[in-house]
Amino acid sequence: MSDNVADLGEFGLIAAIAARMPQTRHVVVGPGDDAAVVNAPDRRVVASTDLLVEGNHFRRDWSSGYDVGRRAAASNLADVVAMGAKPTALLVGLGCPADLPTEWALRMADGFREEGEILGVSVAGGDVVRSSSVIVSVTALGDLDGRPPVLRAGARPGDVVAIAGRLGWAAAGLAVLSRGFRSPRVLVEAQRRPEVPYEAGLAAPGAGATAMCDVSDGLLADLGHIAEASGVAVDVDTSALAVPDEMRDPARALGADPMVWILTGGEDHALVATFPSDAVLPSGWRAIGTVGDGSGVTVDGAAYDRDAGHDHFRVP
Amino acid sequence: MSDNVADLGEFGLIAAIAARMPQTRHVVVGPGDDAAVVNAPDRRVVASTDLLVEGNHFRRDWSSGYDVGRRAAASNLADVVAMGAKPTALLVGLGCPADLPTEWALRMADGFREEGEILGVSVAGGDVVRSSSVIVSVTALGDLDGRPPVLRAGARPGDVVAIAGRLGWAAAGLAVLSRGFRSPRVLVEAQRRPEVPYEAGLAAPGAGATAMCDVSDGLLADLGHIAEASGVAVDVDTSALAVPDEMRDPARALGADPMVWILTGGEDHALVATFPSDAVLPSGWRAIGTVGDGSGVTVDGAAYDRDAGHDHFRVP
Repeated sequence: MSDNVADLGEFGLIAAIAARMPQTRHVVVGPGDDAAVVNAPDRRVVASTDLLVEGNHFRRDWSSGYDVGRRAAASNLADVVAMGAKPTALLVGLGCPADLPTEWALRMADGFREEGEILGVSVAGGDVVRSSSVIVSVTALGDLDGRPPVLRAGARPGDVVAIAGRLGWAAAGLAVLSRGFRSPRVLVEAQRRPEVPYEAGLAAPGAGATAMCDVSDGLLADLGHIAEASGVAVDVDTSALAVPDEMRDPARALGADPMVWILTGGEDHALVATFPSDAVLPSGWRAIGTVGDGSGVTVDGAAYDRDAGHDHFRVP
Repeated sequence: MSDNVADLGEFGLIAAIAARMPQTRHVVVGPGDDAAVVNAPDRRVVASTDLLVEGNHFRRDWSSGYDVGRRAAASNLADVVAMGAKPTALLVGLGCPADLPTEWALRMADGFREEGEILGVSVAGGDVVRSSSVIVSVTALGDLDGRPPVLRAGARPGDVVAIAGRLGWAAAGLAVLSRGFRSPRVLVEAQRRPEVPYEAGLAAPGAGATAMCDVSDGLLADLGHIAEASGVAVDVDTSALAVPDEMRDPARALGADPMVWILTGGEDHALVATFPSDAVLPSGWRAIGTVGDGSGVTVDGAAYDRDAGHDHFRVP
């Protein structure tokens, strides 16, 4: 039995991971050659890449290998969906210390596989290297199926701002874990593993979405990206952002304002989009604001006075 | 002036890097949205990903940011070319400590740009995160232009084995650097920055290459991959592998056998391929062996008695 990845060796680990990764119909050539070959029927391919680093994006005492695999896959699949594309494949790089338990790496592979299965997507290739802490790089590919990509730059004055998915849950979970608690479980789970609103995202282009973005830096920060790219102003109506019951008790216990989690928390991988005012929002979307002339993001018509988002080099 | 990446911030660093990255005609949507959109005229996309970790794949006291960018781009572009495809775009993830000099990151971007320019390829997207040491993840995309991919599994008994590019130069450079020397400069440079035989690689499919592989684990190890995938035996003829003059003096000084560097050294990103015996080898390729019935790799008809390749978890 191979207890850690050094016992198994680089090629043994790759083989063990690949054995857990059945390939989908999108994949022409899977793991084991110099590169993967993936179908791109649209003649354009959408491609997004992320790096996740132990101690910054996850902690092994808080998240299992399975959780990290789910999260890493989800964050990239959400990016592809946010472009208006349907994901087709994942590529994964794993850096790990020689004493990483083999089970951790294999469970991470399971997480990738199961998150991918939601969308019919497999890990078509990757790389395994040695590093002092665990590092996961992910690239997701996707297909536009003949449609133009949904950019951040397409919002127009008069549009409705809508979100799909959860906001602030991961931030609340992180706040709970950071104070040494392990509950409420639903918030801690949200921090470990986002629930990306894939179906809602896939329905957005057909419903006329003019702009779309994955909420990874926090709602206000990511709406700021849309406002800037589109040359418009965005106002968020907090009365449309109900504070979930699950957040009330921990917010009180931690002396926190749950609306800050909702407005500025990243890592839930919700989707935010703009739609023409007469559009029928697809299932899973709810209106939370409006697009106007001008620039910047306001909350209930006023400037927001708290730190509005996440900068990886300026962690509070 | 922003002396280190924390002064500039995540978004400032991304903007500064993107400003140095003009996009090519392959790129429909470049950096700045949730994902890149890249042309894939063949309706299939070739995709390869690698992770490079400071202290394992490079050392900042030995390699500049520029060198690391060149090397990281080259290693992935070589993988795409080894599939018989023409590279179309790169995606890059950079993990760096807050005190990384901004200049280092920008010079790395220059390295990516200049290596890409050899093939008309740009960095279409990426990610920047904080990490305790420098980490670079790279994904290269490519197009098959209507041809089948050149797999590792296509070698047939009777084929000729040929190589393009340099073998053992990076290993010799590493041996020199490891003993505290900085010369011969040509070997040290080879360790810092591979010279990938892109043109020869791009010509291989048209000349009938039956199998092809990027030499990253060492010639014998990578020929082992071809032999195993193809179900054939490979014999290497060392009389066709001349020891370059540049290696003779350092080999003597270090008490090393230069043929070991040539047969087992990785990281030069040479290409090894098999061709039908009656093929006319394109410019840049030279015959170094033959394919036969059986299994495994022999050298001059005999088993090779030294460690034949590189395993990232079992570094000598």
